[in-house]
Amino acid sequence: MMKARVIVTLKNGVLDPQGKAIEGALGGLGFDGIGAVRQGKVFDLVLSATDKAAAEAEVAQMCEKLLANTVIENYAIEIE
Amino acid sequence: MMKARVIVTLKNGVLDPQGKAIEGALGGLGFDGIGAVRQGKVFDLVLSATDKAAAEAEVAQMCEKLLANTVIENYAIEIE
Repeated sequence: MMKARVIVTLKNGVLDPQGKAIEGALGGLGFDGIGAVRQGKVFDLVLSATDKAAAEAEVAQMCEKLLANTVIENYAIEIE
Repeated sequence: MMKARVIVTLKNGVLDPQGKAIEGALGGLGFDGIGAVRQGKVFDLVLSATDKAAAEAEVAQMCEKLLANTVIENYAIEIE
């Protein structure tokens, strides 16, 4: 059994209104010096695979097909 | 200027219907051996702080006040 973490973030240049809203809210709470905020998603998966390379390839397929919109998002995979 | 990444995940025992839906969708796409899927959030912040410890303390305050609901969520901070 392996654990995989997938982090999906917006590509550079893609507008992130949610991040902008958080940036504004942090400023409103009195936090200074916030340059930029971008929000993304994280997925924690438990896999029954035992081979690390095979697990990573499978998770990459999941990202391409479901977890990330590769037109506007990047994904990073960590296997534990 | 420092970059901080905050990862917010649901605490153990908190129901995650979104994760369950993703788990079902992955099964429907033919991915076998998925044990569990939990979804969380990631925030990438750019800070003007120059001291790593001070930046980490400030980001922890942001998590407590805005970024995470500490009743049901855990947060982890990475400073680069």
